[in-house]
Amino acid sequence: MDIVSFLRTTPLSRNLSEDQLEILAQSAREKRCRAGQLIIGEKKETRTFFIVAEGRVKMFKSSSDGKEQTLYLLGPGEMFGMCAAFSDSIFPANVITMEETTLLILPGTVIEDLAKKDSTVLFNLIFILSGRLKESMSLIESLSLMETPQRVASFLLFSGLKKDCREGEVAELTISQRELSKILGTTPETLSRILKKLAGENIIEVTGRKIRVLDCEALQELATG
Amino acid sequence: MDIVSFLRTTPLSRNLSEDQLEILAQSAREKRCRAGQLIIGEKKETRTFFIVAEGRVKMFKSSSDGKEQTLYLLGPGEMFGMCAAFSDSIFPANVITMEETTLLILPGTVIEDLAKKDSTVLFNLIFILSGRLKESMSLIESLSLMETPQRVASFLLFSGLKKDCREGEVAELTISQRELSKILGTTPETLSRILKKLAGENIIEVTGRKIRVLDCEALQELATG
Repeated sequence: MDIVSFLRTTPLSRNLSEDQLEILAQSAREKRCRAGQLIIGEKKETRTFFIVAEGRVKMFKSSSDGKEQTLYLLGPGEMFGMCAAFSDSIFPANVITMEETTLLILPGTVIEDLAKKDSTVLFNLIFILSGRLKESMSLIESLSLMETPQRVASFLLFSGLKKDCREGEVAELTISQRELSKILGTTPETLSRILKKLAGENIIEVTGRKIRVLDCEALQELATG
Repeated sequence: MDIVSFLRTTPLSRNLSEDQLEILAQSAREKRCRAGQLIIGEKKETRTFFIVAEGRVKMFKSSSDGKEQTLYLLGPGEMFGMCAAFSDSIFPANVITMEETTLLILPGTVIEDLAKKDSTVLFNLIFILSGRLKESMSLIESLSLMETPQRVASFLLFSGLKKDCREGEVAELTISQRELSKILGTTPETLSRILKKLAGENIIEVTGRKIRVLDCEALQELATG
């Protein structure tokens, strides 16, 4: 992999100079992982950053009785490990690969080294953390204030589809219904029942992982509660 | 108020020079608010920072049918507004004062001005955002993976009390049970029922806002699920 070229496309490297990209690339170690591999567990001590180069990982919390709540799905260019590296070094959740994945592993100190010359990388990091915090607030809102059918409608409208819903638009799920249920904080059975009900009411049409919207207005009404 | 002296005690100003503190203080505007005043609403456009100088505010999400979920309670020295200022300028939640409160209002640009000379303030901001993100992950875990009695026990152990629970230790709630229920994502009635049940089982003793722990082991068992 040409690490410099790849890094140039990531949010962390926005507006960095070629010199800075070189420093970042030189400190990076490539790691190939098979699907379903645990990358790091909750409460592990680490000051390392990870950037997904290829593939996809899932960050999640789990309970003692085996239930899971997905926090984030992260794909190429997205990073994790910032929280631990910049607070108490304790990783706050579990990260597992969802498919064959290549990670770039960077020592926490490289950000400090880069920032000595120019603080651009710190603004990039603040931008990434701010976005992540907003996403987590939306998830809290969804879990706490929305009933499950509302969460499903909201997901289809704002994550699966573009913001302006059009009749006939198709949301192709890139994950299984089982994984989607862990994002929505529900069971696969409940999710399946809700999708069937929406299909029965001619609001959506489900074919495998493809979900076609038949009635935008009804979906939007459900999503706004 | 001596703004420089106050700012020196806040996490944002950690390790800043006297010059930098002066710049920060000069850009700050003091605002006194009565209890129950809405400071900023969800989706408002802003690039301003707020620091609580005295009093306390609550950041929360609300639903169309009037339900509320508390995201954070913020007291003296704590700040809000970073998410909006450093991403899309859209404030992600509502903020209301819980008592008489004095705020310091800072223009978003002051951070950029400070960072031109020295990036310390950016590291402070990253530290604050990282901590906030970890808190929100814990809240997601609590709302999604814990039953309400477990959330109550967990709150008493880790928020109300010190981490090492001792028999006879007293957690004095600084908020009403009604407010606590909005943090725990439940109703005041359910919270009251759970506290009564724990008292009936001689695990805690409730006198007004004081909660005395009678049986640490039982409380810890409940909290870990």
